[in-house]
Amino acid sequence: MEPVRGNLVVGQSGGPTAVINSSLSGVVLEALEHDAIEEIYGMVHGVEGLLGEELIDLGRQSAATIAGLRSTPSAALGSCRHKLRDADYEKLLRVLEAHGVRYFVYIGGNDSADTAWRLGRLAADLGYELRVMSVPKTIDNDLVETDHCPGYGSVARWLATAVRDAGLDTEAIGVVDTIKVIETMGRNTGWITAATALARDHADAAPHLIYLPERPFVRDRFLADVDRVHKKLGHAVITVCEGLKDERGEYLSASGKTVDVDRFGHKQLGGAAAVLCDIVAEGLGIKARWDKPGTIQRVSMLAASPVDLEEAYQVGRAAVRHAVEGQDGAMVTLVRESSEPYRWATGLAPLERVANAERKVPDEFIAPEGNDVTDAFLAYARPLIGPPLPPYARLDMTRVARRTGG
Amino acid sequence: MEPVRGNLVVGQSGGPTAVINSSLSGVVLEALEHDAIEEIYGMVHGVEGLLGEELIDLGRQSAATIAGLRSTPSAALGSCRHKLRDADYEKLLRVLEAHGVRYFVYIGGNDSADTAWRLGRLAADLGYELRVMSVPKTIDNDLVETDHCPGYGSVARWLATAVRDAGLDTEAIGVVDTIKVIETMGRNTGWITAATALARDHADAAPHLIYLPERPFVRDRFLADVDRVHKKLGHAVITVCEGLKDERGEYLSASGKTVDVDRFGHKQLGGAAAVLCDIVAEGLGIKARWDKPGTIQRVSMLAASPVDLEEAYQVGRAAVRHAVEGQDGAMVTLVRESSEPYRWATGLAPLERVANAERKVPDEFIAPEGNDVTDAFLAYARPLIGPPLPPYARLDMTRVARRTGG
Repeated sequence: MEPVRGNLVVGQSGGPTAVINSSLSGVVLEALEHDAIEEIYGMVHGVEGLLGEELIDLGRQSAATIAGLRSTPSAALGSCRHKLRDADYEKLLRVLEAHGVRYFVYIGGNDSADTAWRLGRLAADLGYELRVMSVPKTIDNDLVETDHCPGYGSVARWLATAVRDAGLDTEAIGVVDTIKVIETMGRNTGWITAATALARDHADAAPHLIYLPERPFVRDRFLADVDRVHKKLGHAVITVCEGLKDERGEYLSASGKTVDVDRFGHKQLGGAAAVLCDIVAEGLGIKARWDKPGTIQRVSMLAASPVDLEEAYQVGRAAVRHAVEGQDGAMVTLVRESSEPYRWATGLAPLERVANAERKVPDEFIAPEGNDVTDAFLAYARPLIGPPLPPYARLDMTRVARRTGG
Repeated sequence: MEPVRGNLVVGQSGGPTAVINSSLSGVVLEALEHDAIEEIYGMVHGVEGLLGEELIDLGRQSAATIAGLRSTPSAALGSCRHKLRDADYEKLLRVLEAHGVRYFVYIGGNDSADTAWRLGRLAADLGYELRVMSVPKTIDNDLVETDHCPGYGSVARWLATAVRDAGLDTEAIGVVDTIKVIETMGRNTGWITAATALARDHADAAPHLIYLPERPFVRDRFLADVDRVHKKLGHAVITVCEGLKDERGEYLSASGKTVDVDRFGHKQLGGAAAVLCDIVAEGLGIKARWDKPGTIQRVSMLAASPVDLEEAYQVGRAAVRHAVEGQDGAMVTLVRESSEPYRWATGLAPLERVANAERKVPDEFIAPEGNDVTDAFLAYARPLIGPPLPPYARLDMTRVARRTGG
């Protein structure tokens, strides 16, 4: 198909990540290489900004700024979680038409894919030539049709590092604070929590127990798990997804005050870890403490995975390249060609298959006991975080012979 | 004074940090250089392990392990928070005597300085020659007699980075989650919370409001502060110390369930941020979210300050060197010779002046309104975190001219 001449608009949507600006950088630099693309606009705060005709000119930013996006976390254009009404799509099309936009690139998760898909359908219905492409982005790693999602490798590396360090903390101070619960993001899927298993660098290393929302939380089984680890090691580090639910399907965090609902009807979670600490205190009589790194985990540049940064950049480039070549209504995917050595390529999937679908952690990645991940998961996730975590020193703890009566 | 011949024992106490193992490395490497010191023992879990005669031989660890401690967070020997009874000190002395220990080096905060001081006094009373030295360590930065404490520069750098990133997150997603509260450690002093000001890299950057426990929390003033920032920027990022107290002197977190008391009678805090979120929701009708990085902040190697790592190493070395030279009953201090360029040296302070004393953030470091720090604080803290944070790209957000009716 012939490239259509016109302008491109790109937007960022959903929760920010360490690498969503890498995708933006890829989109802009690829767009600059194609004669068919004239102006390159950025939506300020995604489709919400586009509705209000809030656009900036990305083609006129300095080269240093566009390059610098690759090491800048969060969403430089501003993000949004705007749920569009039917009338909004018509308004969006009017804005796009007024600005001569023929390429619509939206970087985001499944909500964003849905938005892009609906916009593309309306454009087709009205006979307005618009090439709509979606660039995957979500730390949740819950998009279907792609091996994994840009943003995931970096949150995985951050959490692996943080849980390893926090695990050493509990091991050191263990005679006092012997149980620690670390709450990760992840809403309805356990991909992020599962990645904490990458923290382990020796047999008894943290995390000792991992609870994903793919399995219902069972209080007694949990207490038995904690008790067993605690009796063996004298301490226990537990990682848990914010979206953990009990056997009735209720969020554990629902007993706290911090549950709220965003505009998509997603519950804003927080508090599962505190609830687990209360359960440990009640059930085992042991004081537990909890960490909830919250949004810090998803945008931290400190442990951004170089693999993730590069993939995010390349999916941005691929979206534009494919659109110029004639693709429409598709999301760029990541295709794993090999895990060892890790090799990947980009692919394409129809937006309608991605929109609003959610990929949970599959059974083969979850330990039968529901309190850990499997080696198959580790083999899947390990290449995504980049190089191995730097090694730490461990002292030989062989005791000196006693010389007093004790 | 002549060096006394004998063995050395070193222990780690209190909350782990990113750099307490650097101090341990310094102690061991310095001890190896002195003929007066024969064996180098490590206490497993501090004085609690020493009481139980749990010692390891640090002189027989590999050189790679001792060097590797400088890039390994937490407390490799194990830490403790054991409050000793009078009888315990006599027992400690018996263990030390049985193992021919003449040098006692304890790395920790003011509780540890107190322990060391009492032990030294008892040894003197009983005529047992023991040179007792304390090596400062606390992320809280609340020791007197020293310009700052090893561990502080690293937690300061970690939080500056995390708050900058999380601030960009709120700025990006601000149309939905417009207010974020980040809770830092710090117990009764605001040094750690204050360090979040180092996150700012432009005029409207996060954090926009900083609340230290040195000032009572006043609900109405807080709400007015948040409202003002929110009206101006459309979002607000607030950093708050876990130990914030209201006008009656009650911990804000006391309304939560997570307050507990450790063996020193210190309250274990957590929940101030969640309480502030509730206050914002009630008072302004705006949803707020909170992050509580907890123990992750204090041991993270990701943002360890190179200045802090080096100082921690050198205070460890200095403690041994001074003890061999005849010093006793002292804590090694950090003396600032100049802030720009940053120059420092080690000094010494009597343990009895350090023991149990606490240094609060002084008035000249706190903004008169009680919701920020001053430039004087920034000048104090900036050199401690090492090189400036890496720059981030910011897009020119000038809008493209509108072409529709709006």
